[in-house]
Amino acid sequence: MDKKILKLYLVLDPDLCGGFDGMIQTAKDAAQAGATVVQLRAPDWKKRRLAACGRELLKVLRPLGVPLIVNDHVDVAVAIGADGVHVGQDDLSPEDCRRQMPEGMILGLSVSNLEEVRNVDPALVDYVGIGPIHNTSTKPDAAPAIGFDGLRAIVSTSPCPSVAIGGIKTRDIPEVLASGTDGIAVVSAICGQPDPSVATRNLLALLV
Amino acid sequence: MDKKILKLYLVLDPDLCGGFDGMIQTAKDAAQAGATVVQLRAPDWKKRRLAACGRELLKVLRPLGVPLIVNDHVDVAVAIGADGVHVGQDDLSPEDCRRQMPEGMILGLSVSNLEEVRNVDPALVDYVGIGPIHNTSTKPDAAPAIGFDGLRAIVSTSPCPSVAIGGIKTRDIPEVLASGTDGIAVVSAICGQPDPSVATRNLLALLV
Repeated sequence: MDKKILKLYLVLDPDLCGGFDGMIQTAKDAAQAGATVVQLRAPDWKKRRLAACGRELLKVLRPLGVPLIVNDHVDVAVAIGADGVHVGQDDLSPEDCRRQMPEGMILGLSVSNLEEVRNVDPALVDYVGIGPIHNTSTKPDAAPAIGFDGLRAIVSTSPCPSVAIGGIKTRDIPEVLASGTDGIAVVSAICGQPDPSVATRNLLALLV
Repeated sequence: MDKKILKLYLVLDPDLCGGFDGMIQTAKDAAQAGATVVQLRAPDWKKRRLAACGRELLKVLRPLGVPLIVNDHVDVAVAIGADGVHVGQDDLSPEDCRRQMPEGMILGLSVSNLEEVRNVDPALVDYVGIGPIHNTSTKPDAAPAIGFDGLRAIVSTSPCPSVAIGGIKTRDIPEVLASGTDGIAVVSAICGQPDPSVATRNLLALLV
């Protein structure tokens, strides 16, 4: 995996985007404006709908060269031929995921403390998502906020590329980048913004 | 798939069984008493726990020759080497499931009306679960009850073996069998019963 794709990582939220069609439009706008990777995350959806949405996203993202990552569900990712899967500590283990993923498919793993990042096997995991930096309303079951100190400690321990996530605002970007992480992942900084294209460009302008 | 495995199909319920350990014990008791197949179904659980429970169930069921089917999640079934997967109409399509399942793994599909059973491709689907016969509290999002008339109509249209499900009680068994279905699937008729072994044997005595 080229770690440059982690620079501006958009995680779609069905509620903030206004449902299925809104997710496609937000992904398209953000990818055209320079978002470097898109994650399909809709924890309340059944898999038939997730797969349908993922296939529509691939139609939009493939021509733009922007990879699509599916949250949690290896079976959905494999079914639609997505570029990757992102799992949490309570999902299938990286070993269990990798065994059924085609060669070259990206695997991301959420980590929220030093113990979790020390357990990461870079032969299995392509990148880690580190967070939450701040507490965030878009993921009610997230771990406690780790702040910038926590981020720095985990980045410096990580055996693989990383992206910071969790309520990151424009004003946080300099301090997030100073941690040495490879990019930022955002939900509400793009999803549901009056103009997702402008929001994406504004974030990118700071990610230098 | 040998359709004899559908004769008495136990669907585990984590609440009725008393959680992870209770599910293992219930499955063991029922399988030793003659249940012919067991389904792991825990829609509120994360996949790490589902996989762990599935692996414990396999340790108990494999020596007894009783297959284990995983509800909804092809990725969990493939990860643990389960004997099969059961999906609903809103889960991954049979095509999407079959493409990533090892040769010989069982695929079951829920159907609740004639249109759904007419769409079943027996080259992909090994058996259909037909129901709910009665309304049932163990699956709040189930389709409306189809009754014995609905069961008969769907069984006679099905291109593959079938099992009836949904609030089936002991007194219903003669009428269920008269439909020509290959077996009954139960949740609360075994899970949470004072003695799951006795409950299993009582059901089997009527399934002749």
